[in-house]
Amino acid sequence: MKIRTLYAGGRGILRPGATSCNVSGVRTSSNTGPELPPCSHVPKNVTFPTYDEMLKTRSTKLNPAYMTFYRKPLYITQGHMQYLYDNTGKRYLDFFAGIVTVSVGHCHPRVSAALRDQLDTLWHTTNVYMHPKIHEYAERLTEKLPEPLKCVYFVNSGTEANDMAMMMARLYTGNHELLSFRNSYHGMSMATMGITGQGTWKYKLPGINMNVHNIMNPDPYRGIYGGNKCRDSPVQVLGRDCDCAGGQCKAEEGYLEQLEEVLKYSTQTGLPAGKNIAGFFAESIQGNGGAMQYPKGYLKRAFKRVRELGGVCISDEVQTGFGRTGEHYWGFQGHDVVPDIVTMAKGIGNGFPIGAVVTTPEIAKVMTRANHFNTYGGNPLASAVGIAVLDAIEKDECQKVSEDIGTYLLGELAKFRGQFECIGDVRGKGLMIGVEMVNDKASRVPLAAEKMINVWEDCRDMGLLLGKGGINGNIFRIKPPMCITKEDADFALSVFKLALEKNGA
Amino acid sequence: MKIRTLYAGGRGILRPGATSCNVSGVRTSSNTGPELPPCSHVPKNVTFPTYDEMLKTRSTKLNPAYMTFYRKPLYITQGHMQYLYDNTGKRYLDFFAGIVTVSVGHCHPRVSAALRDQLDTLWHTTNVYMHPKIHEYAERLTEKLPEPLKCVYFVNSGTEANDMAMMMARLYTGNHELLSFRNSYHGMSMATMGITGQGTWKYKLPGINMNVHNIMNPDPYRGIYGGNKCRDSPVQVLGRDCDCAGGQCKAEEGYLEQLEEVLKYSTQTGLPAGKNIAGFFAESIQGNGGAMQYPKGYLKRAFKRVRELGGVCISDEVQTGFGRTGEHYWGFQGHDVVPDIVTMAKGIGNGFPIGAVVTTPEIAKVMTRANHFNTYGGNPLASAVGIAVLDAIEKDECQKVSEDIGTYLLGELAKFRGQFECIGDVRGKGLMIGVEMVNDKASRVPLAAEKMINVWEDCRDMGLLLGKGGINGNIFRIKPPMCITKEDADFALSVFKLALEKNGA
Repeated sequence: MKIRTLYAGGRGILRPGATSCNVSGVRTSSNTGPELPPCSHVPKNVTFPTYDEMLKTRSTKLNPAYMTFYRKPLYITQGHMQYLYDNTGKRYLDFFAGIVTVSVGHCHPRVSAALRDQLDTLWHTTNVYMHPKIHEYAERLTEKLPEPLKCVYFVNSGTEANDMAMMMARLYTGNHELLSFRNSYHGMSMATMGITGQGTWKYKLPGINMNVHNIMNPDPYRGIYGGNKCRDSPVQVLGRDCDCAGGQCKAEEGYLEQLEEVLKYSTQTGLPAGKNIAGFFAESIQGNGGAMQYPKGYLKRAFKRVRELGGVCISDEVQTGFGRTGEHYWGFQGHDVVPDIVTMAKGIGNGFPIGAVVTTPEIAKVMTRANHFNTYGGNPLASAVGIAVLDAIEKDECQKVSEDIGTYLLGELAKFRGQFECIGDVRGKGLMIGVEMVNDKASRVPLAAEKMINVWEDCRDMGLLLGKGGINGNIFRIKPPMCITKEDADFALSVFKLALEKNGA
Repeated sequence: MKIRTLYAGGRGILRPGATSCNVSGVRTSSNTGPELPPCSHVPKNVTFPTYDEMLKTRSTKLNPAYMTFYRKPLYITQGHMQYLYDNTGKRYLDFFAGIVTVSVGHCHPRVSAALRDQLDTLWHTTNVYMHPKIHEYAERLTEKLPEPLKCVYFVNSGTEANDMAMMMARLYTGNHELLSFRNSYHGMSMATMGITGQGTWKYKLPGINMNVHNIMNPDPYRGIYGGNKCRDSPVQVLGRDCDCAGGQCKAEEGYLEQLEEVLKYSTQTGLPAGKNIAGFFAESIQGNGGAMQYPKGYLKRAFKRVRELGGVCISDEVQTGFGRTGEHYWGFQGHDVVPDIVTMAKGIGNGFPIGAVVTTPEIAKVMTRANHFNTYGGNPLASAVGIAVLDAIEKDECQKVSEDIGTYLLGELAKFRGQFECIGDVRGKGLMIGVEMVNDKASRVPLAAEKMINVWEDCRDMGLLLGKGGINGNIFRIKPPMCITKEDADFALSVFKLALEKNGA
């Protein structure tokens, strides 16, 4: 039986040969270690195929491109708020939230109630007819955004949102050249695969990078410039000293010069008009790339430069939106910018398939230059859920949870960095946290895959689900539902520490 | 207040200028006309914004690309099986099913129950963990398909499905050239906009048609070849006689010659290898294009030819799948072919956002050549709904309803064609029906937009919602939920006839 696992590949090389495993003979869960905080939720009685039946289906009926975490993939059967339960009834603290998607909690009562109420009323008509929910939702969602970002188009995923934003940028400016960062992730359609800046996520296909430039990533930890004052984070423990003072940031300057190189050598900005850029895509904090933060003034100046050259600026808030970064509702607010287009997905629907593109009325208008349609986008179920998620974020004070617990976690993890040679970097904001694992602090060489996986698996065995990412597969990603408590955080910290110790890390 | 309506444009020209309307001063619904079949369902008490509030939101918060049907757009607030209710409580027979999406009925009890049950269990984890539902669904869905089509990747829309199928075809064959029909519709991402063969649905963007050929549409009614024996339909009333006999079809030959022209002049098939085609996309019956059917032997021979040239054949079953065509579960079965890739959406989820790409294990494997991911695809909610839709189709005998009621409708509509000069063509299979409206039978000039709209609006006023499509906006599309009764059909026929008479058509 072969299962394709998302392995920590050394040097970013995908190694399908290394990803099969024998399901029998792997380690079994242990119940040693810290106690999960108590939970009064009583799991439902649910029936499901056995693990072996499921594996059989997986190997014969599902596309082998489906990748799973862990040597013996976890079999999740139900969830409640920050907890998940596997097929044996074991409870886990979910610190990855289905890849930053379950924003307010698994099966959140308010969101579930909204869906339960809507499902007897109306599921779908398409937008050739009007229906109430999309309008109520459009009002509520755009309330959360600054002027002039008040015009929304609903789609079904982050990929669809970024694909549409690529179109809008090109149509509005009349230009073709798009910029995005190396190490970015913006989706998996043929077009968005181009702006996604990770070779491991690009198929060998004609034209996917056409008129797209993946520019140097301003990564203060691993990039050519960086210091210990670059980031907008409660912790600055990346181990690169600098003598910058008084708001000065040499890394910011250096990376902006590199942007300028691309503009000068690879785009047509030298021509008389000088306004030949279509757009610039940036995640406010890189998600898939491992909670990567840019030097804090970079994005504001890059946006200014791109606009000088005729381009529009697109904030990809698929992971950073909806209070995730704590201090702000939107990640871009942490950069003191107002983008021209904002793309959203994941946390917007707490697991329901929703995506959205919000822009200015002026830019939105370009979409009328041809017929455009999206069958499911903004359907009554999705809209009812989306509204309830906005409510839950507010009522449950999720943004405050992100800020408080996130800052606490970052502080504690920064202390771990002092204790463990294998923790190279701790970064992020709110509940968008990255812990970059290395062989040793001096070399910054990514931690060997085997060791990385062992720490990760041990956390899982002790009941903690961590995310993993980065092109080298060596970054732990901590992005739980925004309903975790201080006790959950302490449990997670204890487990992580034990796993590090156990593996002699 | 401006509302963008999907107007019947003459000659396929999109005229945004003609699409605004004054909301006051339009006709109001009349209650004259045939009686809707009785329905024991008691509508819910639901609250919603007033019509004017909703319009205000629409004009300020929603992207102006949202197009609506009718001069005064309908405001739908709830639905039950084949019926919809507007903001005044008026009931309508839904003969368009949210664009062929509500397959088994609005808020179908079995499908609603499945969603209700799942929403307290698990919404989402992504597929980095295993969860039961996607496996149960993969088993059930692939059961419905012939060998070797047994390997599924779940996505969120038809656009995502076709975008992925484009990738698979190119990766598997190592070729770039894709073929699709003029008058086809395959989605709205930057890539699928290329294979979509309708200029009104293509933005002026770089590269969207790259390595794509929209080949001549083998349309027996409006194309250069056609006769009264071409189609796989219970009715052959297109008004073009032919002397074909004994299984011979000159139209089929003619259109295949035209395909050969493209292969010869526009692709690289002349090179030594002679195998330079990546793939060929075909809806089994064109949906957006107006229930357009090809000469019945065409697709089988085209598939054979494309395969000779190294390409794979993709059936877009977004509209024709799941029993819609009556005689078969899949539209491609009506062409006696087994495609290499099948794309699905719409009816698959009865309104829930689901898409899928089913292919052979051999082709599926190409997706492992890079990382690939889809956050929501195959999530537990979607999978639970998808399974329930398969069950409902079976238990409610939807395929039989499609065949019986569809054939009845086609027969009666064919009679109307004899009575009304403005009905140029009646075509389709099962509950996938097109009625092409013309100025007069001899010229086949599309019916003037004003007249078309008047008939359509009068049907609406009498409680019947018809679809509309085709690049000239002159085709009524009849694709109701597959739970309609003979009484519903009779009501619809009476209403349509009255509307035609009233407008002197």
